[in-house]
Amino acid sequence: MTLSREMLEASPLASELPVEAVAAAIDASLACQQSCASCADSDLAEEDVAAMARCVALCVACADVCTTTARVLSRRFAANHRVTHHILRACVLACSDCAEECERHAAHHRHCALCAKTCRACVSACQGLLTAEEFAALENLAGA
Amino acid sequence: MTLSREMLEASPLASELPVEAVAAAIDASLACQQSCASCADSDLAEEDVAAMARCVALCVACADVCTTTARVLSRRFAANHRVTHHILRACVLACSDCAEECERHAAHHRHCALCAKTCRACVSACQGLLTAEEFAALENLAGA
Amino acid sequence: MTLSREMLEASPLASELPVEAVAAAIDASLACQQSCASCADSDLAEEDVAAMARCVALCVACADVCTTTARVLSRRFAANHRVTHHILRACVLACSDCAEECERHAAHHRHCALCAKTCRACVSACQGLLTAEEFAALENLAGA
Amino acid sequence: MTLSREMLEASPLASELPVEAVAAAIDASLACQQSCASCADSDLAEEDVAAMARCVALCVACADVCTTTARVLSRRFAANHRVTHHILRACVLACSDCAEECERHAAHHRHCALCAKTCRACVSACQGLLTAEEFAALENLAGA
Repeated sequence: MTLSREMLEASPLASELPVEAVAAAIDASLACQQSCASCADSDLAEEDVAAMARCVALCVACADVCTTTARVLSRRFAANHRVTHHILRACVLACSDCAEECERHAAHHRHCALCAKTCRACVSACQGLLTAEEFAALENLAGA
Repeated sequence: MTLSREMLEASPLASELPVEAVAAAIDASLACQQSCASCADSDLAEEDVAAMARCVALCVACADVCTTTARVLSRRFAANHRVTHHILRACVLACSDCAEECERHAAHHRHCALCAKTCRACVSACQGLLTAEEFAALENLAGA
Repeated sequence: MTLSREMLEASPLASELPVEAVAAAIDASLACQQSCASCADSDLAEEDVAAMARCVALCVACADVCTTTARVLSRRFAANHRVTHHILRACVLACSDCAEECERHAAHHRHCALCAKTCRACVSACQGLLTAEEFAALENLAGA
Repeated sequence: MTLSREMLEASPLASELPVEAVAAAIDASLACQQSCASCADSDLAEEDVAAMARCVALCVACADVCTTTARVLSRRFAANHRVTHHILRACVLACSDCAEECERHAAHHRHCALCAKTCRACVSACQGLLTAEEFAALENLAGA
């Protein structure tokens, strides 16, 4: 059991969302926040930095969205599931964009290969949470 | 013209969104980030802190969403409007929840009265941007 | 009176630091957080992006330090002045580095000229707070 | 080897700081950021919330400092070691304060017991990095 999972289990409030899926999304977004901050930094130091500009921009944005995702998912008191829904969808999109760009550079920059993998894992974890039964009823609300 | 507006105007990239509305949403979310961080802190120091717990939770969450909103809106390069869309919607919801709770305490806590006003201004600015014509076509995409 | 100042005045706790100087540093760090996020984004879109890599890196780092500075200064309850001290010093250094680099590009990139000015204002506001009498006694502690 | 370590190893820039200690501090501050966000949320939902107010305040502040610590340590390009030094010292202080308060509640709130442990681990990792030989020469500069 990861620390995030243990922290969620220790809350005095019952969870309306599946704890395992929430913990997985927290862990994935924390890892992605780090890999994106690091990848953007490495991109800037590469000789082909001009070709990496788009990667830097997407990594920097993804790191910010992931930071907020991890925080929003770590809270249960007075949490609004529609906020969670939109943050998760923003996170899936930001991580997908970032993964796609990093994959283009994966063969020649190991940091991009690693970061792409972390982004894909975050997409998967956030989508897993979004498609949990508990969120099903929110889809209509959120699309309203 | 605010600094945010000047910074947006100085970008080498053309904006696909109305610059004035983007700048207004940036300024509103920066102000809301500050008032929420400050209000949560003041709530914790009030004698009726037990009655303020919900306000603390909503302010803390709102501050985080506003921070990311201001950052996402400050960037144009490789920006994904669907990410922007979901962040703005999360921001409108988080600020609305926070404003509603702060308004309940506005009569006896001046920090809540001020914070409610800042949250409402942020809701208005973000909604103004979301309802701009430029975002109209995204509604369907984002709801998909 | 700015909103930050009003929020600080509305706290139920007395301030151990000069409120006007704290509010000035909050406002300056919020502005700097925005200008740095925006400047980094503009840098990446410039034709001479390879020459701007250092500017991007310094702006991205400065934005993060400024975000935390604004938050730390917005709180009074259980605040540790030594934490505030180190955050302010980190902020002065990050903003100085960023200002220096932006100034090198100010003649050809208006976003750098604007950002350099915002960074210098933040250095000044944070130094103003650090040199307030109230912090004098902390210097020895913090240097320990 | 953790992901943070792998990302650091994949940078095109040589590290001036010991990579293993940097990676340990990144991992510890990411974990602490999560446990503090979660602990503050749980505190607010406890029946003895009035007794937990100080814990909420310290956790919220600690989470912010840890977020910036993880980001600053994840970057190497144009990094200023004096900024790193002050951020690490702020982090050690914020985590120590938070650990001390959480320990007071550890017997009756499991989230506090877990969070205290995570904070202590972060203190240890950041101090490990601060006392690395590479930082020794910076002590005088930073104290100037």
